[in-house]
Amino acid sequence: MTTAWGLLALDLLGVFVFALSGGLVAVRKRFDLLAVLILATAAGLGGGILRDVLIGAVPPVGLSDWRLVAAACAAGSITFFFHPRVSRTQSAVLLLDAAGLGLFAVAGTLKALEAGTTGLTAVIVGVLTGVGGGVLRDLLAGDQPRLLAEREWYATPALIGASVYAVAWSADLAGPPVAAGCVVLITALRVLGLTRRWQVPAPRDAD
Amino acid sequence: MTTAWGLLALDLLGVFVFALSGGLVAVRKRFDLLAVLILATAAGLGGGILRDVLIGAVPPVGLSDWRLVAAACAAGSITFFFHPRVSRTQSAVLLLDAAGLGLFAVAGTLKALEAGTTGLTAVIVGVLTGVGGGVLRDLLAGDQPRLLAEREWYATPALIGASVYAVAWSADLAGPPVAAGCVVLITALRVLGLTRRWQVPAPRDAD
Amino acid sequence: MTTAWGLLALDLLGVFVFALSGGLVAVRKRFDLLAVLILATAAGLGGGILRDVLIGAVPPVGLSDWRLVAAACAAGSITFFFHPRVSRTQSAVLLLDAAGLGLFAVAGTLKALEAGTTGLTAVIVGVLTGVGGGVLRDLLAGDQPRLLAEREWYATPALIGASVYAVAWSADLAGPPVAAGCVVLITALRVLGLTRRWQVPAPRDAD
Repeated sequence: MTTAWGLLALDLLGVFVFALSGGLVAVRKRFDLLAVLILATAAGLGGGILRDVLIGAVPPVGLSDWRLVAAACAAGSITFFFHPRVSRTQSAVLLLDAAGLGLFAVAGTLKALEAGTTGLTAVIVGVLTGVGGGVLRDLLAGDQPRLLAEREWYATPALIGASVYAVAWSADLAGPPVAAGCVVLITALRVLGLTRRWQVPAPRDAD
Repeated sequence: MTTAWGLLALDLLGVFVFALSGGLVAVRKRFDLLAVLILATAAGLGGGILRDVLIGAVPPVGLSDWRLVAAACAAGSITFFFHPRVSRTQSAVLLLDAAGLGLFAVAGTLKALEAGTTGLTAVIVGVLTGVGGGVLRDLLAGDQPRLLAEREWYATPALIGASVYAVAWSADLAGPPVAAGCVVLITALRVLGLTRRWQVPAPRDAD
Repeated sequence: MTTAWGLLALDLLGVFVFALSGGLVAVRKRFDLLAVLILATAAGLGGGILRDVLIGAVPPVGLSDWRLVAAACAAGSITFFFHPRVSRTQSAVLLLDAAGLGLFAVAGTLKALEAGTTGLTAVIVGVLTGVGGGVLRDLLAGDQPRLLAEREWYATPALIGASVYAVAWSADLAGPPVAAGCVVLITALRVLGLTRRWQVPAPRDAD
């Protein structure tokens, strides 16, 4: 019960902030209202839908829980009607996106573990939950997925935080405090990576 | 039984007309015969496969029912061998595509409802069934998905018709006449949108 | 038991060689280490994950069997650290890719048949298993999928070999020797197609 509520809260927050990112991309491309809502929904719900399809939890909660759909549509509407204000708060959006990454990666790992997967599967599913919405957003918008191209410190924090959570789970320590800690860890690593321009090494000879 | 037959007929028609659209894109890009068949099949079966994966009806009927696969391959072959004639009938293709959108959106909504989903899930699944094949077609062909970029009145008719059908279902009115009416409604709205250049509003300041 | 072992061996080899192709694309695009690993993993595991989602075998073995994940990551690391050497062996990579296509197409067909699908479904799933990783690799890397655009003799060998295997299965002849024969058949057809520049016919008037 507590876990279910916690998962829903994590999901709602994550959906909202990711949907903001999708809505902003759509507004900048001058898509129409419905396309803004579709891209916001895809960015907000895509990671969770991918997660649920991969662990067999169908229909995905992102399509069946009206609160998640409403959160995505609300975020899309906000970017549509207030986009100059949302854009001016670019750094706030990046911060929210970092929080969304943390929320989704931990929620995805947790849901996979509860579905009985191994730790390895759960970590991969968690990372895919965190990054899947953004990849879907970019593909639908006709952009090269930023995840791979940008050499940013993005999937790495998700991978670290999801791994920490899976290890804690296997040691029977994975209660709400640890989950919250892992969300904060991912968010902090992402923000630090942004502000300090951390990079993962690139191939030799290729620079 | 009747429902099953009706669903099959809707599916066959929809697959055929969407596969024509996929075949035409492939022919215009000078793809070879097999690539024309693959793109026709992806456009014709993609929406239904996405639907079945999302509601857990695997293997998807688009891969297991030879009649659907045959309809897609027939459409692909027709575009390959007779594409100048198919291209000259551009307006016929747009009309067929509008009918396909209606057929798929209603069939998808119906199948999801029969699988026991809520009305919200069924409407989303129905819209995804209607637009999924076209998005897959564009991604595989290396194009930006038209769904979002074109500011066309395309997903909107599907959303309206699927919602009407789901409401009728919850009021226990959703027999074949209502299904047929919703297909006609979507088709008519799409055609009217095309001929009268209806548009969904775009963001302020972005024009 | 024997089948299970055979499937694992086929899968491991196929994952490794496809992951090499993904890693090479990533290195050429100057992606960072994690992106190289992600693209290698997507190319190596994507086809099998698609297969498992389509036949309902979730979570996909590509996410649950650490040996497959390890094979993909090993291939990604090798391309990252030794890419000049891997690139110099371009023809070896093409040969390995041909073998991977054969291994995956046959393994996909076999797994679908064992899951109880019809022969038609199994052949389609087999072909998708063979070509799916490469399509995912290209989409994630921001390229037009080579599968359709290149007019190469690529999906055709997979289609032929998977069909032969499905026919043998329905005649109760599909033991390990026939499986091996079909892998060799696909590999040989692919290599012959490359060296002799075989092409599938393109549309009339479009050249």
